Amino acid sequence: MKIARTISEARAFINELRQQQEGSAAGRIVGFVPTMGYLHEGHASLLRRSRQESGISVLSIFVNPIQFGPNEDLDRYPRSEEADLQLAEREGVDVVFLPSVEEMYPEERRTTVTVTGVTERLCGASRPGHFDGVATVVSKLFNIIKPDKAFFGAKDAQQVAVLQKMVKDLNMDVDIVPCPIVREEDGLALSSRNAYLSEEQRREALVLSRSLREASIRIQTEDVTPQQIVDDVTQAIQTSPIAEIDYVEMLSFPDLAPIHPEHGLSELRASGGSAILALAVKFGSTRLIDNAIMKLKEAPLHV
Amino acid sequence: MKIARTISEARAFINELRQQQEGSAAGRIVGFVPTMGYLHEGHASLLRRSRQESGISVLSIFVNPIQFGPNEDLDRYPRSEEADLQLAEREGVDVVFLPSVEEMYPEERRTTVTVTGVTERLCGASRPGHFDGVATVVSKLFNIIKPDKAFFGAKDAQQVAVLQKMVKDLNMDVDIVPCPIVREEDGLALSSRNAYLSEEQRREALVLSRSLREASIRIQTEDVTPQQIVDDVTQAIQTSPIAEIDYVEMLSFPDLAPIHPEHGLSELRASGGSAILALAVKFGSTRLIDNAIMKLKEAPLHV
Repeated sequence: MKIARTISEARAFINELRQQQEGSAAGRIVGFVPTMGYLHEGHASLLRRSRQESGISVLSIFVNPIQFGPNEDLDRYPRSEEADLQLAEREGVDVVFLPSVEEMYPEERRTTVTVTGVTERLCGASRPGHFDGVATVVSKLFNIIKPDKAFFGAKDAQQVAVLQKMVKDLNMDVDIVPCPIVREEDGLALSSRNAYLSEEQRREALVLSRSLREASIRIQTEDVTPQQIVDDVTQAIQTSPIAEIDYVEMLSFPDLAPIHPEHGLSELRASGGSAILALAVKFGSTRLIDNAIMKLKEAPLHV
Repeated sequence: MKIARTISEARAFINELRQQQEGSAAGRIVGFVPTMGYLHEGHASLLRRSRQESGISVLSIFVNPIQFGPNEDLDRYPRSEEADLQLAEREGVDVVFLPSVEEMYPEERRTTVTVTGVTERLCGASRPGHFDGVATVVSKLFNIIKPDKAFFGAKDAQQVAVLQKMVKDLNMDVDIVPCPIVREEDGLALSSRNAYLSEEQRREALVLSRSLREASIRIQTEDVTPQQIVDDVTQAIQTSPIAEIDYVEMLSFPDLAPIHPEHGLSELRASGGSAILALAVKFGSTRLIDNAIMKLKEAPLHV
């Protein structure tokens, strides 16, 4: 496994590996997993998928300052380079790209990639500028790594939607591959930010996955409206005395357009569309997100 | 010479040519000249440079609607596909990419590449949104063609500055190569928009190159201030009864930052810096631009 700390090293290592694979089209495929490090089993699942589908598997670890707001957790974002490198080695990564902030932003940055529409709701509304920072850094990473496929976790569902739209609009020659959310046995979605949680917060946070699971069942079995679902989930979360809701929303997926709250889901059901039920909730100063993406059955199943 | 009207054709043709050049690193270099067509000798000079420096020479012709303002000349922008293809053939182009608007913008576009700073003055100030449209379409074209070098005329000096900053900020793996302005024998800078000019306008427009030439001599031979130079050029242009000035500005180059109008050029001279004297002037409904970029001598030459 090679470790590149500069852009030119990363390019050189990947070019070398590509050249070694000359003659094998599959062997030359570059799979890429961009992360902010503090890797967990969710990241490991992305790396395994990248290893399976690519001849050259690349991981980047970069805590990207421009996707954090002024009052967010940039300064305390957890880091553990050594453990990350061990996990990468174990998952068969060929090249780890570990740039410094100075390497990525050496002079005053004037260029921003902006995606509108899909960024207007959910985290786009609560974290202004966040998705500009994500789209800009992912553009940079794609231009450095030149991957054929890039793997992202579905926990950041809006991020996936934003990047899919960006890639389509700008004709980037890369497949965005969303991968399923990985959860703890008790349901908590894996996140590097779970490290911030106290024991009590960790226990209370289970209300998120539980309420999403119950709502998913209700959507598939009853003729409910999005407003009823949002109300259910909101009430369930409010049973926790320490949960502070940022948003609970139900939207169509992947376009993240509003579904009329009182109209029921019949239109979406008829078109075989998908919906996302997404939430962001704070426990103390730690903001967690989770979601459920549902392909809607034509009529509710009566179980 | 291959003609690609779709993105997938363009990619396939270029990949094929790259594969034929396997083993020759120089032969695999892709040179790219993006244009809006109605090609003239200025474009031909870019294509010759591309032919000299690349194994594979690609031309695109696309009148990009998103870089035109609502009251600009998109609808009447001159086109002549047949003559363009003849010129391309003559200049040894390997692949011409000639997409339709639907091919480039098949669905509602939500992604924009924005460059601030260098876009604030000159044409960026008089044509709001213009450089967003340029940066976005050039990003798309770069992602489609994947050139190693891209050749642009220095007449659009601000465009060159914007694209150089974009490429640097987003780590695009392409060299932006600015090429000298090509002029008619009488000094008029070549432009597809010259086709709009009446005989009288064509004659009066000579004041632009003449005033730039005189100002360049004065800058290199006298200790003048930018304000004096701008006043000189403004007065010279105003001798034409039909010239309508949009802007005359003198800025540092390539950062396009203001030089204090009264401070003289001593600081720039001392640092061996460059300056640009740029103008945009309307003759009837036709807006022409021209500029002179000057590397400043340490002290004015007394000739």
